[in-house]
Amino acid sequence: MTETRIALTHHVSLNMRVRGLRPSATIAINDRCKRLMAEGRDIYRLGLGQSPFPVPGVVVEMLRRHAHEKAYQPALGDPLLRAAVSDFHRRYDGLESGPDDVLIGPGSKELMFLLQLVYYGELLVPSPCWVSYAPQARIIGRQVALLHTRYEDRWRITPEALEEYILRDGDPYRPRLLILNYPGNPEGGTYARDELSAIAEVSCRYGLIVLSDEIYGQLQYDGRHHSIANYCPARTIISSGLSKWCGAGGWRLGTFTFPPQLRWLLDAMTAVASETFTSVSAPIQCASVRAFHGGPEIDEYLRHARRILQALGAYVTPTLLNGGLRVHPPEGGFYLFLDFSQCSRPLAARGVLDSVTLCEQLLQDTGVAILPGSAFERPPEELTARLAYVDFDGEAALEASRGWSATEALSESFLEQHCPRVVEASRRIAAWAQAG
Amino acid sequence: MTETRIALTHHVSLNMRVRGLRPSATIAINDRCKRLMAEGRDIYRLGLGQSPFPVPGVVVEMLRRHAHEKAYQPALGDPLLRAAVSDFHRRYDGLESGPDDVLIGPGSKELMFLLQLVYYGELLVPSPCWVSYAPQARIIGRQVALLHTRYEDRWRITPEALEEYILRDGDPYRPRLLILNYPGNPEGGTYARDELSAIAEVSCRYGLIVLSDEIYGQLQYDGRHHSIANYCPARTIISSGLSKWCGAGGWRLGTFTFPPQLRWLLDAMTAVASETFTSVSAPIQCASVRAFHGGPEIDEYLRHARRILQALGAYVTPTLLNGGLRVHPPEGGFYLFLDFSQCSRPLAARGVLDSVTLCEQLLQDTGVAILPGSAFERPPEELTARLAYVDFDGEAALEASRGWSATEALSESFLEQHCPRVVEASRRIAAWAQAG
Repeated sequence: MTETRIALTHHVSLNMRVRGLRPSATIAINDRCKRLMAEGRDIYRLGLGQSPFPVPGVVVEMLRRHAHEKAYQPALGDPLLRAAVSDFHRRYDGLESGPDDVLIGPGSKELMFLLQLVYYGELLVPSPCWVSYAPQARIIGRQVALLHTRYEDRWRITPEALEEYILRDGDPYRPRLLILNYPGNPEGGTYARDELSAIAEVSCRYGLIVLSDEIYGQLQYDGRHHSIANYCPARTIISSGLSKWCGAGGWRLGTFTFPPQLRWLLDAMTAVASETFTSVSAPIQCASVRAFHGGPEIDEYLRHARRILQALGAYVTPTLLNGGLRVHPPEGGFYLFLDFSQCSRPLAARGVLDSVTLCEQLLQDTGVAILPGSAFERPPEELTARLAYVDFDGEAALEASRGWSATEALSESFLEQHCPRVVEASRRIAAWAQAG
Repeated sequence: MTETRIALTHHVSLNMRVRGLRPSATIAINDRCKRLMAEGRDIYRLGLGQSPFPVPGVVVEMLRRHAHEKAYQPALGDPLLRAAVSDFHRRYDGLESGPDDVLIGPGSKELMFLLQLVYYGELLVPSPCWVSYAPQARIIGRQVALLHTRYEDRWRITPEALEEYILRDGDPYRPRLLILNYPGNPEGGTYARDELSAIAEVSCRYGLIVLSDEIYGQLQYDGRHHSIANYCPARTIISSGLSKWCGAGGWRLGTFTFPPQLRWLLDAMTAVASETFTSVSAPIQCASVRAFHGGPEIDEYLRHARRILQALGAYVTPTLLNGGLRVHPPEGGFYLFLDFSQCSRPLAARGVLDSVTLCEQLLQDTGVAILPGSAFERPPEELTARLAYVDFDGEAALEASRGWSATEALSESFLEQHCPRVVEASRRIAAWAQAG
């Protein structure tokens, strides 16, 4: 999956940490799919993790109403929005926080970058992980430790593995930031309460700060997302935003919520925010207040979105298993992390020895775009990949789901009708993996 | 003007370059004024440089129409917007560039930060300068050379001073980035064509890259803004955006336009953009296309905005001169850079020995908020300050200006009626400076 690198000649003077950097893998796959489609190819777009659903109507209406807002906002964010975000975390997560504990950014990705810039310590990242945590650390020059997890552990970090890593190090009290993401990208899994509690205990013991990336929290299928902040509130920063549960990835609005004990990090990030993005777009912030306020329209939207995603994830998982892949049924979000290792022999015979070649070949042979495991910090030769089951018309699917009774599970024919490209793509992947 | 610093205890682990960092001076003055007003004080807000004018109606309407846009945009920016920006520079500046030469960011401030992050070299900044160039370099750890200019040179850098600095250094061919800002913040001046041409010559001779910050270009009062890119196109990046001429500071949209020779910098910035802000808010980008397309509504808006600002700048300048201050009549934008050095004796008698105390005392005594010269990288003991003549109802003033013939200059009574707080504030400053 070769992408254009920076057009380098010898006449350049670039930061060594940036030389050779390529655009983020998820952005790159999106651009690549667009180019192939422009050439007339029919592409199944399961690469970019963009919500298939529209922004809820009540939220769009609020953006229209506030389109004239033109004033620079405070670097922390609009106080009304910060109040709405702290209410949101009180409502959904039972957490106490106030408006002054919240920082608004142009996407949680930007906030994570600023956090890594201001914090001085080591980054601990269970892998597979979201594509940008580690590249951000590399750009800034921070030390990153990838904690490789296993299929057998549902790709979850165990408290034992976390503690073992820390104790293996010469300095167990080194300043460290642990990133947890649940429901997770790329593996669609979450943590059970006892798992969170045990990880929290290790974090407290060694003084870790936890960045809890809960951007898919409202897309946990059972509607019972639970934050690690319940177990180590004084050291947890919760990351959220509109991109996933509110379908507004392109709006660019993310939130960090801090405990009072980490006010020094919030203050430092706010100071850097004022020298970089300044504040988030005022009309977007006004509209986001409505999203975080919630209420019946938002709840209804979320119920249907979750029901569709849950049914779809559950429907394609056996197809993929039947193709000889290993994959866990998802618990939230819209990703499956596929393990092709049991097909390694037929794949090797076709020259597929690493995840980049795997995805490249799959795209060539079947038109299905997924992302290689290496983009998620897995070893290059590991035959894994992320599938985002989002290539369907979310607006039409929501509308159709509204015609079904609230308690009913959506049928297979619903999925065949409303998400045909995802269903077909999973069949193509399964057939391709098995083909001798 | 003491502002809250980061709440530090000894239990923190912060990047040394961020410790002690305070929020950007312009953001801080805005927050401070809001607090004083909340306490019931009547504050003349000449601190924050926010356009007093509303976003043009045709542009706001376009944001309403595109409120539902939800897709992640390419990291470079929406291709339609990039085409509109390159057309804009062709139309206004006679420059050849295409959509692929343009990068869209959430404010030009963020783009400048990314430029400093990816470029490896020394930053040359004529001072007084905009508040964020040097702090950004300090956060990133870049070397900054402040080239102090003089009142007698209209606070402009001369080609001689530039060359002298370069030759004084042991390595005249060190990679260097020169930032030029015209019409300028904080001094409201611009460069004549022969001045630009001479600076361009020095830049070419020593291989400087020029970041030409032209965000106030469309607010040059004679409507004849001219870019240095005309003289050294291969090494000039033009920075622009919606914040100033389009009244949309709070929308957060900035643009960089590169020559093909600097594609390596554009590529590196795009890669880092994809790992930080991702892309700019989609609805905002859609609306911005309309702003950069221009046309009769935008031209009319700009004509009136310029006429009002020009008349107001010309009206308050003599008031300030009569108070014993030194100040140049502005040529564009909405700033005056005030030099109180001729009042240093009476000020010293009142304990005013530096620009921070000057602004603090002025605010206490008169309710007028302006920003100290030290925020613009002037020596702390120099008695200078920036006045932003923006505390008036821009919408009402535009409407009133539309009732006047296009060729007429606005009268003093127009200004007394529509910009009374700016007029009164300038009188208060003059009286305060003279008071024994």
